[in-house]
Amino acid sequence: MARIVMKFGGTSVADLDRIKNVAARVKREVDAGNEVAVVVSAMSGVTNQLVKYCTDLSPLHDAREYDAVVATGEQVTSGLTAIALQNLGVDARSWSGWQIPLKTDGAHGKARIESIDGATLIARMQSGQVPVVAGFQGIGPDNRVTTLGRGGSDTSAVALAAALQADRCDIYTDVDGVYTTDPRIVPKARKLAKIAYEEMLELASVGAKVLQTRSVELAMKQRVRVQVLSSFEGNGLGSDLPGTMVVDEDEIVEQAIVSGIAYSRDEAKITVRRVPDRPGIAAAIFGPLSDGGVNVDMIVQNVSADGTTDMTFTVGRADLPRAKAVLNEQIGSIGFAEILADSDVAKISVVGTGMRSHAGVASTMFKSLADRGINIQVISTSEIKVSVLIAADYTELAVRALHTAYGLDSE
Amino acid sequence: MARIVMKFGGTSVADLDRIKNVAARVKREVDAGNEVAVVVSAMSGVTNQLVKYCTDLSPLHDAREYDAVVATGEQVTSGLTAIALQNLGVDARSWSGWQIPLKTDGAHGKARIESIDGATLIARMQSGQVPVVAGFQGIGPDNRVTTLGRGGSDTSAVALAAALQADRCDIYTDVDGVYTTDPRIVPKARKLAKIAYEEMLELASVGAKVLQTRSVELAMKQRVRVQVLSSFEGNGLGSDLPGTMVVDEDEIVEQAIVSGIAYSRDEAKITVRRVPDRPGIAAAIFGPLSDGGVNVDMIVQNVSADGTTDMTFTVGRADLPRAKAVLNEQIGSIGFAEILADSDVAKISVVGTGMRSHAGVASTMFKSLADRGINIQVISTSEIKVSVLIAADYTELAVRALHTAYGLDSE
Repeated sequence: MARIVMKFGGTSVADLDRIKNVAARVKREVDAGNEVAVVVSAMSGVTNQLVKYCTDLSPLHDAREYDAVVATGEQVTSGLTAIALQNLGVDARSWSGWQIPLKTDGAHGKARIESIDGATLIARMQSGQVPVVAGFQGIGPDNRVTTLGRGGSDTSAVALAAALQADRCDIYTDVDGVYTTDPRIVPKARKLAKIAYEEMLELASVGAKVLQTRSVELAMKQRVRVQVLSSFEGNGLGSDLPGTMVVDEDEIVEQAIVSGIAYSRDEAKITVRRVPDRPGIAAAIFGPLSDGGVNVDMIVQNVSADGTTDMTFTVGRADLPRAKAVLNEQIGSIGFAEILADSDVAKISVVGTGMRSHAGVASTMFKSLADRGINIQVISTSEIKVSVLIAADYTELAVRALHTAYGLDSE
Repeated sequence: MARIVMKFGGTSVADLDRIKNVAARVKREVDAGNEVAVVVSAMSGVTNQLVKYCTDLSPLHDAREYDAVVATGEQVTSGLTAIALQNLGVDARSWSGWQIPLKTDGAHGKARIESIDGATLIARMQSGQVPVVAGFQGIGPDNRVTTLGRGGSDTSAVALAAALQADRCDIYTDVDGVYTTDPRIVPKARKLAKIAYEEMLELASVGAKVLQTRSVELAMKQRVRVQVLSSFEGNGLGSDLPGTMVVDEDEIVEQAIVSGIAYSRDEAKITVRRVPDRPGIAAAIFGPLSDGGVNVDMIVQNVSADGTTDMTFTVGRADLPRAKAVLNEQIGSIGFAEILADSDVAKISVVGTGMRSHAGVASTMFKSLADRGINIQVISTSEIKVSVLIAADYTELAVRALHTAYGLDSE
């Protein structure tokens, strides 16, 4: 017997037939003797429609009203899923965020969960009832409905799993797990049985969007075991195959040095040429960018020559125009020669907690890329990740080379 | 300065443009110095879609889940209307039933309002804010969302007007008031400036569905002055013309003897032939019908001959098959010869509080119909209404004749 939170995203509850499949999948866990709570997103398309209503009325709409409108999508799905479960003879009831209550701060539209009163739901589960919780929403200190921001349903599920002291949180998605890399690029990519929270975070941050970053952070903090699995395999009833467990790295006995290769084409590179090489110059450049809401990722500073230096960094591609505008406003106070921008770049990352105890990971990467004639433009490293910026045309070649170099190819 | 509750139905908030029109209409009342609360229905079509989801999943769905699903339609509209008002510079916020709270009994799907805490909303209105209340919904003793049943938004509005001690409750509809009869049948029908609650109830019960019966009953009980007016006249901003005020009859100085002529084709006539004429026979017939959920309306019992009598009565046309089935089950215990049924009938009613003090209303009716060769099949009367059942083919002829006979034609 286990206590499980099962979370189904928008495509898994897109219509009544899929909602019935979700109910059948839940019933199987109940029949297996488990205590189950369900978290659902809005039917796919519904949230977008509701957001569009608000935006069409006013681009600067009141976020409190936006929340009141948009949170209804999940309420509908939770009620319908409860009905579908009851049809199958499973005792179930829907819960809106305010009913639990799932308390958040007052940051409407992007609220953070503060506390969840799990006592009532635990008692219901112990008496055999399945709570079906509307994801993505809570109640703020103003007694009004809040939403957690896009992807908030994953976060709802993980937070609920923590509050309910669940043995695991199963996140049903349109993929069947986390792979060593994108199988569309590397057909020999393998599904990982387990991956550490930290690795999942690094993969998410470089473009492998299986789980929302926030939900993984929360899972890591609360030590919630999260399983990623498909809602579409196995006659639409969800896979019987296990997915990928996202767990504490201590739980992973056979730790690979590198767990996965990720890539992102959503990058742009900026070089600020001939900046005066004096103390405080980095702050003079990156302070205004930060104030302007531009996230800077990789940064390198060239060796100084004749009292000036070149500063190169990456930003999200969508932020490039804003970043250039901010910098051009500062040209007088900073005093640089010119700005070069290049959005035809990709970031390739190798990720693995095993790096902590193994040297040579970066040099394997550099050698593999050099062997294929791929030029590295920028390098950044963290404790469990090495990332390089390369020309975008080489993305697939680089991913395949690295996947092989680190022994990740399946037989 | 007045305190007004303004209620807008589904067609008045069917899309964003109409919601903007509603906001502009509300702003005019605010600009005129009034304190305003708004009650909105779901965008037209939305409630039907949500009901269909529930029904398609299960005809016997849990009414509590039905309520959780269906009540979202009004939540969306209340949020959007608040945004539209804010766009026009009007301070506004949305309120769900549970937030007010609008407390109901636990009869999910058809809940009755028990109490409304008006204090918070009154304080908000006095500080210049417009509460935009989601109609049709409340919160039950189980802390779950309830709905008031179809047409419940009118009832929400009237109950809210009572709780807020409003000077009047304006119900915006797709007609511009209450007419002396259906203008499609009698082009000379006149819009009534005022009509008494009792008259409105009698008209509603015989097919003039301008307001939901429940809302009129509540208005009468709570002495809420209700105005029926159009949301579509006057450049879509709602009519500047006054609609029809539904008020206490004491407020109507120039009381007409007859205020209106109503008709209904939703009737069926049943005759139970050769029933034993003994005490308790009416109970033996109508008890089982009542137990079977069949509402019986007009009843006549013929003069007895040879120890038996004929019992004729009307039921709703949709109930006819059920009524016949119920009676046929009782044929042994009651002991009658046969059942005759006729659904090709119409009920014509003349309604007016002035009848209380004027004799001769019924005889005018009978004479007018007789002059046109219209045969009366059944008669029933109440203090302020005389109804007759006639062959359906004569409906329009009868309505026109009576409209003229009671002096209701406009110049």
